[in-house]
Amino acid sequence: MIDRPHSPNLDALLGQEIPVLDHGFIRVVDYMGNDDAIVQAARVSYGSGTKSIGDDRNLIRYLLRHRHTTPFEMAEIKLHIKLPIFVARQWIRHRTASVNEYSARYSLLDREFYIPNEEAIASQSRENKQGRAGPVSADRAGEVTKAMTETAERAYATYLELLNEMVEGFVQDPEKQGVARELARAVLPVSFYTQWYWKIDLHNLLHFLVLRADAHAQYEIRCYALEILKIVRAWVPHVYDAFVDYRFDAVDMSGPALRVLRKIIAGERVDQASSGLSPREWRELSALLGTAL
Amino acid sequence: MIDRPHSPNLDALLGQEIPVLDHGFIRVVDYMGNDDAIVQAARVSYGSGTKSIGDDRNLIRYLLRHRHTTPFEMAEIKLHIKLPIFVARQWIRHRTASVNEYSARYSLLDREFYIPNEEAIASQSRENKQGRAGPVSADRAGEVTKAMTETAERAYATYLELLNEMVEGFVQDPEKQGVARELARAVLPVSFYTQWYWKIDLHNLLHFLVLRADAHAQYEIRCYALEILKIVRAWVPHVYDAFVDYRFDAVDMSGPALRVLRKIIAGERVDQASSGLSPREWRELSALLGTAL
Amino acid sequence: MIDRPHSPNLDALLGQEIPVLDHGFIRVVDYMGNDDAIVQAARVSYGSGTKSIGDDRNLIRYLLRHRHTTPFEMAEIKLHIKLPIFVARQWIRHRTASVNEYSARYSLLDREFYIPNEEAIASQSRENKQGRAGPVSADRAGEVTKAMTETAERAYATYLELLNEMVEGFVQDPEKQGVARELARAVLPVSFYTQWYWKIDLHNLLHFLVLRADAHAQYEIRCYALEILKIVRAWVPHVYDAFVDYRFDAVDMSGPALRVLRKIIAGERVDQASSGLSPREWRELSALLGTAL
Amino acid sequence: MIDRPHSPNLDALLGQEIPVLDHGFIRVVDYMGNDDAIVQAARVSYGSGTKSIGDDRNLIRYLLRHRHTTPFEMAEIKLHIKLPIFVARQWIRHRTASVNEYSARYSLLDREFYIPNEEAIASQSRENKQGRAGPVSADRAGEVTKAMTETAERAYATYLELLNEMVEGFVQDPEKQGVARELARAVLPVSFYTQWYWKIDLHNLLHFLVLRADAHAQYEIRCYALEILKIVRAWVPHVYDAFVDYRFDAVDMSGPALRVLRKIIAGERVDQASSGLSPREWRELSALLGTAL
Repeated sequence: MIDRPHSPNLDALLGQEIPVLDHGFIRVVDYMGNDDAIVQAARVSYGSGTKSIGDDRNLIRYLLRHRHTTPFEMAEIKLHIKLPIFVARQWIRHRTASVNEYSARYSLLDREFYIPNEEAIASQSRENKQGRAGPVSADRAGEVTKAMTETAERAYATYLELLNEMVEGFVQDPEKQGVARELARAVLPVSFYTQWYWKIDLHNLLHFLVLRADAHAQYEIRCYALEILKIVRAWVPHVYDAFVDYRFDAVDMSGPALRVLRKIIAGERVDQASSGLSPREWRELSALLGTAL
Repeated sequence: MIDRPHSPNLDALLGQEIPVLDHGFIRVVDYMGNDDAIVQAARVSYGSGTKSIGDDRNLIRYLLRHRHTTPFEMAEIKLHIKLPIFVARQWIRHRTASVNEYSARYSLLDREFYIPNEEAIASQSRENKQGRAGPVSADRAGEVTKAMTETAERAYATYLELLNEMVEGFVQDPEKQGVARELARAVLPVSFYTQWYWKIDLHNLLHFLVLRADAHAQYEIRCYALEILKIVRAWVPHVYDAFVDYRFDAVDMSGPALRVLRKIIAGERVDQASSGLSPREWRELSALLGTAL
Repeated sequence: MIDRPHSPNLDALLGQEIPVLDHGFIRVVDYMGNDDAIVQAARVSYGSGTKSIGDDRNLIRYLLRHRHTTPFEMAEIKLHIKLPIFVARQWIRHRTASVNEYSARYSLLDREFYIPNEEAIASQSRENKQGRAGPVSADRAGEVTKAMTETAERAYATYLELLNEMVEGFVQDPEKQGVARELARAVLPVSFYTQWYWKIDLHNLLHFLVLRADAHAQYEIRCYALEILKIVRAWVPHVYDAFVDYRFDAVDMSGPALRVLRKIIAGERVDQASSGLSPREWRELSALLGTAL
Repeated sequence: MIDRPHSPNLDALLGQEIPVLDHGFIRVVDYMGNDDAIVQAARVSYGSGTKSIGDDRNLIRYLLRHRHTTPFEMAEIKLHIKLPIFVARQWIRHRTASVNEYSARYSLLDREFYIPNEEAIASQSRENKQGRAGPVSADRAGEVTKAMTETAERAYATYLELLNEMVEGFVQDPEKQGVARELARAVLPVSFYTQWYWKIDLHNLLHFLVLRADAHAQYEIRCYALEILKIVRAWVPHVYDAFVDYRFDAVDMSGPALRVLRKIIAGERVDQASSGLSPREWRELSALLGTAL
């Protein structure tokens, strides 16, 4: 009898709750496949054509570099995740995954909500319409924490009052009718924690990580993505290395930017006006190349 | 020059906001295809084999009855929908659709939240773990409305205070640092309204409707589904009729239930114990057949 | 360190080639999850609400009966399959799966093509536009076999001649230019075998089986589906049993048919003309109930 | 009553068969949305945050450049395509699309098969395992054409003989049993033409085009992709321009390659050995930059 392919370093993580944010976690429930499984699937596709690519590590690098993505669908992971609702709402936009979420129609939500650390409480960015600038002052952070906590606590108290069920820490009023769970939960803020099982293949997981471990992602979902990156590194180390080089640290170089670059390398003078790039793209290319063009 | 296929009754609805719940709406933004488009696609697949099926209406009925679902993917609709966040969270579980949702990272949410009508305020069902029983008393409904409104109002006030932006109806405090939008919104309850563009093909829309216009769906999402049913009726009347007969009003009859049914029809005596059905299934079959077995 | 959930009876099958048709096979490469994994995912969703359902077997039956399909996405299987191209063309229509197929652009196809058994050589059905009637005579079957074999053999000879590569059983002509593999393969019939890795979750696999193990499916793909059914039985026995009762042996009973049925059960006289059913539906209902209505 | 958004230049193409290869075509059957529809969907998502981006054309460029892909799912197109089976087999790997294909189980296939033009008959590439090198000699091309044609003709003759149906150009033998269509078609080569309706959203269509209009795609599918590119240009001209700059002409620059580039720009000496790039990547970077590094 043969064994299923496995990944020793991921086996060591199985079942452990990796804490994220103040009450969240990620727990690896199960997985299928490893670096070898990617290679094996690729060798089915490309037959003897893969022999010239060299060893497994290089084949994986080749596949990722040339966006031969289907072999990466051949590995799968299942995570148990506890996360604030507003994070869950961003997360669920990744459609190519399977989800079983805790249902607030069936069951009660716990008194658990997200309050950011002082360093995470930042003002609105001016340049990036959807991002944060630097942290606010300690005093202001204290105010914010207090206001967020109080709002969540009051909402939860209302939730319990509406439910009027026998719950630890709540005195049921036998004179009052309870309200259905699916309705009472409407008062709870999106800072409350939910949880789910989330199952996704490696290809789609890498895509998730490109977007959600990125500096432009919201801080809170990024905290989860960074932990998942570590899980990927333990699970499929060759894929992880290739991913960092060819996807995570990689950049898209547009056709016009590439033409500018060729001129620069060839020693020609280029300026923004004649470059075909917008001022913004020109600045971005300068930043990318680490020099004022 | 030829025109695109269109549906006159849906054309008449284009751009109109159909109100749902207290602040929500559905608006048909665009669509592609009509009853004929389904037929046309089926005739490509089945070639001359479809001739014997008869006219278009019967072909559509045949397709739906025999679960030849691919032609129904050939029509598409795009809706603009305003809906509470907790409804959006159920809705988004339908993955085979395209969504552009209003981003609370970029932009401010309005002071709009869902408060149920008195009749919609119901107690928790005992039989159905995820449903509602009958409405609560008028007094209790008044209390619930008040509590839900106050919680939402207070949360919104906190939201504005955290943002500390120049917003109508809020006096900005120039001494205080505002908090990033993506963070401030964490205090808002899931009763707040969001909005999105939602694009889906007819096959997947029908599947959505089977689940969400069903009596077991949560009342609030059902209100949307029932309005969408009317839109489907206007758009593709033959498909709508077939859908009602073969999907919406249809039931799954299990293998064991079918065997029981055959015995009954043949005049045999059957009781639950010998039927192969669980007591629950036995009750369900009785209810289905409209008689005590 | 904890172990991944596994299925002992499927472990026993791992890596074995299960023969299908004349040269095809199915081989279980890997899998994730078992009956327990389905239950575990459902319990996350429904929280304490699932306690009343009873034991695991009953919970699985409940889920399948009520089309709570998401927990079944939490188990996954990867198969290595060798199959004729025309079967692969039907198979690939199931989009919610991952595939790595042997590439005839990279590599040479073997001299392996499908020739049906004598019993599988049947004439065109008159009733079912896409099906077979009974087998042809032994003489005619012999002719058919001979014609199919010769056509395939000649095509393969042309393929080798076009390639003009060093291949066992072919004498390369050093004077002649070979043709690219991706082009030369265009002469090969769809009876030739290809192979692929196919990975799919259990929910989508069950849907595949409903369609492809059905009596209306083409005989050849059905041979594969029937073997996969046995694999499912070994892998997730509780799911298999529930699947047979609630999906495979189940029927759709349309709204109009259900209304007829209620009248029959209530002792009313119904005939086709007044039933709201088409003659065809009336015949189908009779057949379903095992009696002339 | 308002009208659906439309695209005048695509309207002019509606219903026209655009020839591809020797017997194939592409015909625009229907579509939904235009450049404005993309913008409109983006403005729902980003709310007032999009105002600073400027006009519609720039917003589209911004979206494509930053991979905000969801608005591009909001436009849809439906094509009627006639194509050789081996092309269809590559095409169908793009799973996020809807397909209704002509069924050879129901209906007869015509005597139409693909024979490449003389220039398209090329030898196997040595460097690119899945590609073609230059064309073969005119003599050899003549031989190839003749062999391919004869193989296809003979296969079709066998097909008709197996079917033994009343078909134009075939004398039915009343003494012989015909074979079911689904079986007889097994003798036909993958060079035979099939046809289908194919419906896909613009985002997924652009992804298809990146892969299939690429120089590494097989010549035959590329012929279709290049025609579809022209259709996209007529349909959504702003998207087309942005696509060419930011996707089609763009390149992935890996993290290691970017680090090399920064050194070069900064005037440092870099060689392959110290670059962190493999010899192959080094050559590719040189080619990209249009200079020997």
